[in-house]
Amino acid sequence: MSTPTRQRIVEAGAELLRVKGYTGTGVKEIVAAAEAPFGSLYHHFPGGKEQLGEAVIRWSGAMYGQLGPLIFDAAPDVVTGVRMFFAGAAEHLEETGWTDACPIATVALEVASTSEPMRLATAEVFTSWIDGLAPRFAAAGLDDERARELAMAMICGLEGAFVLARAWRSQEPLHVAGEVVARALEEALGAAVA
Amino acid sequence: MSTPTRQRIVEAGAELLRVKGYTGTGVKEIVAAAEAPFGSLYHHFPGGKEQLGEAVIRWSGAMYGQLGPLIFDAAPDVVTGVRMFFAGAAEHLEETGWTDACPIATVALEVASTSEPMRLATAEVFTSWIDGLAPRFAAAGLDDERARELAMAMICGLEGAFVLARAWRSQEPLHVAGEVVARALEEALGAAVA
Repeated sequence: MSTPTRQRIVEAGAELLRVKGYTGTGVKEIVAAAEAPFGSLYHHFPGGKEQLGEAVIRWSGAMYGQLGPLIFDAAPDVVTGVRMFFAGAAEHLEETGWTDACPIATVALEVASTSEPMRLATAEVFTSWIDGLAPRFAAAGLDDERARELAMAMICGLEGAFVLARAWRSQEPLHVAGEVVARALEEALGAAVA
Repeated sequence: MSTPTRQRIVEAGAELLRVKGYTGTGVKEIVAAAEAPFGSLYHHFPGGKEQLGEAVIRWSGAMYGQLGPLIFDAAPDVVTGVRMFFAGAAEHLEETGWTDACPIATVALEVASTSEPMRLATAEVFTSWIDGLAPRFAAAGLDDERARELAMAMICGLEGAFVLARAWRSQEPLHVAGEVVARALEEALGAAVA
């Protein structure tokens, strides 16, 4: 197989944690899904499950963080980009049987009070997403502080809408939350121009 | 003790699930925290942990659902009510060492793809919260559909902000998301009046 063992373990872990959460996923299950020998887990992750969890969060966060630029680069403007992002997330969530939402939110809530290294990894991923989005909003005409706030509001709206969308098995929360963020961005850009 | 055993088990479960999640909490831990004999768990919940989880979701959801009316009744108007709700949630979250956010979101994400009875319980709780909020927004001047959408946007913003606030140990996401929802409500009410 061409993918190195460590990377296969991280990718299998990412897939399982996204659907079943951190505590709900066993390390044996992860190495089995990765088609890796059990010993390779502790060879690559001497810190065990927690270290693997941290690597999964960072890798998943970086992967998901690449989606934003792809969508915004294809959008005619940032407000349309916000609508496209939420619409794409809604469609993808339904297509994957309501499983494939945010790759790290479940784990972020599970570990927020129980694992400091994993909590810090989720915190850094959220920061990296906002740092990736904010300059686009700033380039469209907002000052840096307002751009950062609206990028944060977008991630908040997205994460919360994923919770309701998965519970209800409905795209609606993503469309509703996306529209509120898009309008907030539109209003801020209008105020910045005026 | 005056609180009946079943209720003590539900309340102890609610406390533990909120902080450690569903899969991260053992039933032994719950009955111990409830100071209940182990056998009483299966006496009151013949369906075991999943049935207890469902009861915890419904009870926690109903308790948390009482917060909205308390805050909005004390607010001079619904827009201020939204700001007060998010500010209160932010303050309470910090005061509880970043543990006491939404009582069901962690479980909702954990079980969305793994337990149909628990997923349905979380879905019903989210619906009940929105059904509790929307009539207030409608009474302030919105049509029913718009009132429901903004109530949904408020819950989405709140849930997503809780994820970031717990990860960062910062009140900021709650203030930022709350302000976006408050402004969206203000704008919708202005448009309804005009």
